[in-house]
Amino acid sequence: MFAPRGGKAEVEEGLEFAPKFDRDGLIPALALDAGSREPLMLAYMNEESLRRTLEIGEAVYWSRSRQEFWHKGATSGHIQRIVEIRTDCDQDALILLVEQVGAGACHTGRESCFYRKVVASHGGASAAQLEWIGPGKSFDPAAVYGKP
Amino acid sequence: MFAPRGGKAEVEEGLEFAPKFDRDGLIPALALDAGSREPLMLAYMNEESLRRTLEIGEAVYWSRSRQEFWHKGATSGHIQRIVEIRTDCDQDALILLVEQVGAGACHTGRESCFYRKVVASHGGASAAQLEWIGPGKSFDPAAVYGKP
Repeated sequence: MFAPRGGKAEVEEGLEFAPKFDRDGLIPALALDAGSREPLMLAYMNEESLRRTLEIGEAVYWSRSRQEFWHKGATSGHIQRIVEIRTDCDQDALILLVEQVGAGACHTGRESCFYRKVVASHGGASAAQLEWIGPGKSFDPAAVYGKP
Repeated sequence: MFAPRGGKAEVEEGLEFAPKFDRDGLIPALALDAGSREPLMLAYMNEESLRRTLEIGEAVYWSRSRQEFWHKGATSGHIQRIVEIRTDCDQDALILLVEQVGAGACHTGRESCFYRKVVASHGGASAAQLEWIGPGKSFDPAAVYGKP
């Protein structure tokens, strides 16, 4: 389904889709809400999960922790309908513009996994800290995922 | 500067910044234009480049191809001023909301590295293709980077 990797000019200036998978066979995919452009989550796809994503029009990742296909929303109902997929100059990263179905993308119960920002400390050696952003939890993960 | 990695609850629900670097010592960082929310580029940081980024308020990546620190814009003038940095639930990915200075983020001469979208073929075995998106080249990379 995907083209073989050509030279730099072909990869950067061509219209053949030749995604580069890393040595684990994965490519990073950042899901953005297609409407609000809020970043939702960053996950990884292997060749087969990318193929399935294109086929069904819903995000299918590869779970590195569980080492299995991860059809987002199969458990929670919070599927991600694909609006557009972009790739970058060297075709080793993907942006998914998605319609996030249901209460949120994050297994912690939030709309987005990016619910904290980094606050740099100006004291030099002291630790950087995080601060909450966003509306907090929008669903109860225990109820949705069926485990505490 | 960064906290040691605690347990799942601390990492997900705490306010200590404990970024997870992969086995190459890297964390992916996706730069979004802080105003338009257009995705600009995905690159990687190691611990020291993240520390420098927080210190100077401009994006400093680690170039995997050149194996060196990559202060974005040092050659081209196209620096990325940091507006906000977010991390995700398991703190193994970063979003940079940036003010992109100059004509663009991409070394090919475009505002964004994500200048093509994937068009899924419905023919099954036939290859997926790319289509151009965005305004095309906004600067001459040979003139800006000083090499053809």
